[in-house]
Amino acid sequence: MRKYQSLLNSLEKYDSFLLTTHVNPDGDAVGSLLGLKYILQSYADEIDLVVEDSVPEYLSFLSGTEDIYLSDELANTERKTDYDLVFVVDCGDLERIGKVADLIPEGNKIINIDHHDDNQEYGSYNYVDSTVSSAGELVYDLAVELGANFKKDFGMAIAAAIITDTGNFKFSNTTPKAHRIIADMLELGIDTKRIIKEVYQRESYGGLKLKGKVLSDLKLAGDRNIAWASVSQQDLDLFEVDWEDTEGLVNSIRGVKGVEVGVLFKEVAEEKIRVSFRSNEYFAVNEFAHQFEGGGHPRAAGCTVMAPLAEAEERVISKLESELGVKNQ
Amino acid sequence: MRKYQSLLNSLEKYDSFLLTTHVNPDGDAVGSLLGLKYILQSYADEIDLVVEDSVPEYLSFLSGTEDIYLSDELANTERKTDYDLVFVVDCGDLERIGKVADLIPEGNKIINIDHHDDNQEYGSYNYVDSTVSSAGELVYDLAVELGANFKKDFGMAIAAAIITDTGNFKFSNTTPKAHRIIADMLELGIDTKRIIKEVYQRESYGGLKLKGKVLSDLKLAGDRNIAWASVSQQDLDLFEVDWEDTEGLVNSIRGVKGVEVGVLFKEVAEEKIRVSFRSNEYFAVNEFAHQFEGGGHPRAAGCTVMAPLAEAEERVISKLESELGVKNQ
Ligand SMILES: [Mn+2]
Ligand SMILES: [Mn+2]
Repeated sequence: MRKYQSLLNSLEKYDSFLLTTHVNPDGDAVGSLLGLKYILQSYADEIDLVVEDSVPEYLSFLSGTEDIYLSDELANTERKTDYDLVFVVDCGDLERIGKVADLIPEGNKIINIDHHDDNQEYGSYNYVDSTVSSAGELVYDLAVELGANFKKDFGMAIAAAIITDTGNFKFSNTTPKAHRIIADMLELGIDTKRIIKEVYQRESYGGLKLKGKVLSDLKLAGDRNIAWASVSQQDLDLFEVDWEDTEGLVNSIRGVKGVEVGVLFKEVAEEKIRVSFRSNEYFAVNEFAHQFEGGGHPRAAGCTVMAPLAEAEERVISKLESELGVKNQ
Repeated sequence: MRKYQSLLNSLEKYDSFLLTTHVNPDGDAVGSLLGLKYILQSYADEIDLVVEDSVPEYLSFLSGTEDIYLSDELANTERKTDYDLVFVVDCGDLERIGKVADLIPEGNKIINIDHHDDNQEYGSYNYVDSTVSSAGELVYDLAVELGANFKKDFGMAIAAAIITDTGNFKFSNTTPKAHRIIADMLELGIDTKRIIKEVYQRESYGGLKLKGKVLSDLKLAGDRNIAWASVSQQDLDLFEVDWEDTEGLVNSIRGVKGVEVGVLFKEVAEEKIRVSFRSNEYFAVNEFAHQFEGGGHPRAAGCTVMAPLAEAEERVISKLESELGVKNQ
């Protein structure tokens, strides 16, 4: 069963590819983008990689990240925009590519490779499977079907995608295949331990102090099944850190015994609150986030609330309590 | 290649087995002990499991742990002590089984199944392989060679052994096979996610707040290569938690970028300070702890200082700085 048969049939006909992924790219976005580049290289005269936002620092050790354009940069170059094919990875909705959309002419052929279960099937070809761990796993399948050799850079990119999207095999989207791909990579001598070190063992001094301060002020809500905390601009200034240093915080919050949903409020600007949700077993946080024009996965989702921090907290937590129940006192 | 051939040849001849492991049993000790029980059951009229210390609470969800004897209990029963075979798992040195040794008659046949690289080969049969992730991986191999069916309880026990001994695939002892065994278990419908939840997601609300408070007050010393923090009796009272809730804290402290040694001071009583050390790459904390009449492993050690908290901090950190260097200002 070759799931990419339709693409494989026509791939030889095309010469120039644009590869992109969602704004604020995470490990799966960057890893599957780079992985895709390595396997498409032999088919293309020209491949451009472009994302609206820059690659986060914790992923910069992956080779190839230095060649990823920002959409603003690419818009200001002389480069062609009439690519034969546009590949979009790890993106449930085309709006999530942000300003990259301006670089794609109307009617351009789009290949949609994704694992979000609310994927909008916006492509000319849609390779969507929400049962896999990550977009990286889908790119790996494409490589297998193309009979590609697994070089070190490809292996690192795919391993980074899988390891980050499964929280290093801790999250419920972890599949048997995710484990087997990493087992194969380890046997090929690919240094997946480097990924763990770069992604998970890079806490800065100020970052750890900030997380400590945020967690020391953790709150419970509902029937003690909601845990939440907030990070303000002031907190960042106090510890001289940036938003990257808050990574992983919402997973710690979800980890409290008895808690189903962990919520982190980030005051990214005045009256602009980015809200991250993580759930443990049954509550679909992507459906909940839809009510605030957000989205994501059932166990990991987010939204943005345009309001002062205290108001955003109140609106989101009271809505959550109405769905998850408040303890009868 | 059947590595257990010698044991397999004679297993049918024996009827009664004693299974044991090291004092203060961890997930690998308990998991491989239980896994071994499940595969030996069809060969034995009698199997007793015994450990000097009780199974830690975070492992009590594994079925079968309720039937593990404490050595003091078993010594006081009418049970036979002339077992045909004694299996010792996850134990480099027979001294590590503690008081269980008193239950084993001189000359009793011992089967040594272990992965420590300094294993003393104390058994009649020694199945020692330091390239595997865990003793659980070796018990899994035995099950395969015996053609055992993998039932749920066996799968959970082996998965718990592998997951805990590899720090859920984060530590450098993680093998391709460790990943593949878990992939197989997942496919058999074994709920390895329960293990992650019970072992890693059991933070109490107060415990996480306490950790937050302690980390928010983290300090650097030496050439920014020492990170340290303290927990006082007052802190425990404030968050209504106990010392168990500080578990993992010293590992977080060690995780700061650029840090070689993480130190946690615990005021377990007035003028009695328990000090935990963790190092990352080169500094032997057990040798350092010797100077304060403590000990342990090169990367994990501890000692007790009989002094007020502030004095213990001063003595230990200044000594550490004299060995690790202070930044020239
Ligand atoms: Mn993804
Ligand atoms: Mn072990």
